[in-house]
Formats: sequence, C-alpha cells, structure tokens
Amino acid sequence: MKKLTLLLATTALLLAQTPSETIQFGADGQPKFPKDYRQWIYLSSGMDMSYGPAAQANPEQSKFDNVFVNPTSYRAFVNTGHWPDKTAFVLEVRAAASHGSINKSGHYQNELLGFDVEVRDDKRFPQKWAFFNFEPGKDKGTAQPATSSCNTCHKQNGAVDNTFVQFYPTLAEIAKAKGTFTAH
Amino acid sequence: MKKLTLLLATTALLLAQTPSETIQFGADGQPKFPKDYRQWIYLSSGMDMSYGPAAQANPEQSKFDNVFVNPTSYRAFVNTGHWPDKTAFVLEVRAAASHGSINKSGHYQNELLGFDVEVRDDKRFPQKWAFFNFEPGKDKGTAQPATSSCNTCHKQNGAVDNTFVQFYPTLAEIAKAKGTFTAH
Repeated sequence: MKKLTLLLATTALLLAQTPSETIQFGADGQPKFPKDYRQWIYLSSGMDMSYGPAAQANPEQSKFDNVFVNPTSYRAFVNTGHWPDKTAFVLEVRAAASHGSINKSGHYQNELLGFDVEVRDDKRFPQKWAFFNFEPGKDKGTAQPATSSCNTCHKQNGAVDNTFVQFYPTLAEIAKAKGTFTAH
Repeated sequence: MKKLTLLLATTALLLAQTPSETIQFGADGQPKFPKDYRQWIYLSSGMDMSYGPAAQANPEQSKFDNVFVNPTSYRAFVNTGHWPDKTAFVLEVRAAASHGSINKSGHYQNELLGFDVEVRDDKRFPQKWAFFNFEPGKDKGTAQPATSSCNTCHKQNGAVDNTFVQFYPTLAEIAKAKGTFTAH
C-alpha cells in the first residue's frame, strides 16, 4: 500500500510538472493560445531576419524572434526527423534593446510584441499546416488563409515538412542525419 | 490490477519524458555537462551583448547567447521569485549568420561555439555560486576561481540572487511582482 501511495504521488508530481502536450482547439474550431509555451522546447532565435529584399530591412525597432515547439513533437522529431500530426510551433516576437542595466552594446530581449503560431492538423486543414497570429494576452488568434504568404513560403522553402528547420541548428543536424533535410 | 498497470505505464512514460533535474557532480567534485540542457527551460537570448566600453564591441564574428535553466528551479522561481539550492544555468554561445538559405538580412543562429555554466550549491561552494566553461562535446569543464570576473560582476549586478534576471523578460516580471528584483 505504501508503494502504491508513493507511485500515485510520483505520477501526480510528474503530471503537475508536465507542460501541455500541444495546442488545443475550441468548440468554434479555432486554436486557443498555449499559455505555457515557455515550458515547451526552445528551437532557436533570430534577430531582424528577412526573406525579402535587403532594402526592406534595417527596421527602426530591432526585433528578436524565439521559436518553441510542443515537447511530444520535439521528441518525435529527434527519433524520426519528421514532425507528427498535431505539431505546434509558437514564434514569440520581442523588441530588442541595447542600453539598459549594465549592458552597453549589442542587444538583449525586451517587451513582448506578438506571436505567430503554426499548427499541423491533418483532419482539420486540407493543406495540413495552418498559421495564426496572436496578440499578447489574447486567447483567440487570427487565422491566415490557406493561400497566405506564410503557407506558400513555408511549403516552398521549408527544409523539413513545411518548417524552417534550416534555421534551427540542433534540429538541422538531426534531419541531415535522418535524411529528411531538403536544402533550400 | 489493470489500473495499477496503467498507472505504472503512465509513470514510466512521464519519467522517460522528464529532462534531468539539474547538473550532476562527478566523484572528482567537478560538474558533468548536462547533455539534455536543450530540454531545460529557455530564458532568453542576446546578441553581441557587452558590459564593457562600447569600443570593445563590434566583434568580427557576431554571436548569440541562449540561456537555459533546470526545470525544477524554474518552477521554484515562478512560485517564489528566488533560485533554490542546486539551480544550474547553461549559457550556450552560437555564431550569428546573416546570408544563408532564403535569409537576406538580420541574423540567425549557426554553429555552436561553447558554453558558460553557473551553478548554485551551498554545501560545495563557500560563495554558493560557481562558474564553469565547457567546450562543445566535452563532459568536463574548466572551473572559474571564486574571485573570477563572472563571480564579482554577477554578485554586484545580478537583479536576483547573483543572476542577471534583468535580461530575462518573463522572469523579471515575476521577480518584480514577488518583490525580489533589485534594479542595477
């Protein structure tokens, strides 16, 4: 009986420490913002990245983006080099600051500006992958149409399964070793 | 009996998915590199941050740093605004690249350059917090002396408990709410 109690306590503790498995959809068919994404798996960050002509770059406000993926799908990717159904990415956008506290040059991350979310759901979306934008603090996002530039650019240029694994250095190594990486 | 089997299976699955709790020390008293730190909790990234005179900045090779903390200590910080004994941080340093794949400006993360590790262990270190450097792929690191510039700068300028929470935006909010944040 003591052993069972310990087992129950261990399971309860582990469940309490386990972040949400992936994004949830409401009765309206729309995804709910995954509030605990900061406990998901971090993939990489960029600063002021731009896929367009350089003339469009050099923004007045420099920005960082941080990319997170749900833990279950991360572990599947490590094993297979592919993203399973129900994979969800959160791209968090933050202002870049330069002078603050003891920092004198370079950039550190500051206030939250917004989120882009990419979800794979094979039953829900004919194109499998869908994109949503969320404002900070909002549970409901804005769906991008299936023909959005996010969809077409990811489909055309994603190194693995509609995703920019070429910019996630630890995953790019895995995908190359598994033979699932397409160079773009 | 079926319920017990299910409980055992759930516990085993959760344990398999749980990253290491914190850094381990070998029989030689030196910390072993925490190989699964990429499943720890991400705190923030900087690019070319420098605490010295600006003249020392503008490096030939731009670099990102990504900071991770062990999950148990992260959850303790969320509850209390302080870091408990056995807290460990991994600061991962990566080269910043600009032109690659479809990216035309700004910076994304590229090859791994090295690690700085900060550990709190009240029994092991008279100064509580200690710093180590690790090269990629090496299990053993190099200890910094208790009088190192890492120790003195963190002690003098860390917003919370010898750590630069002022540069971790989600934690800075928590520490300010809990009254544990000291502005520097």
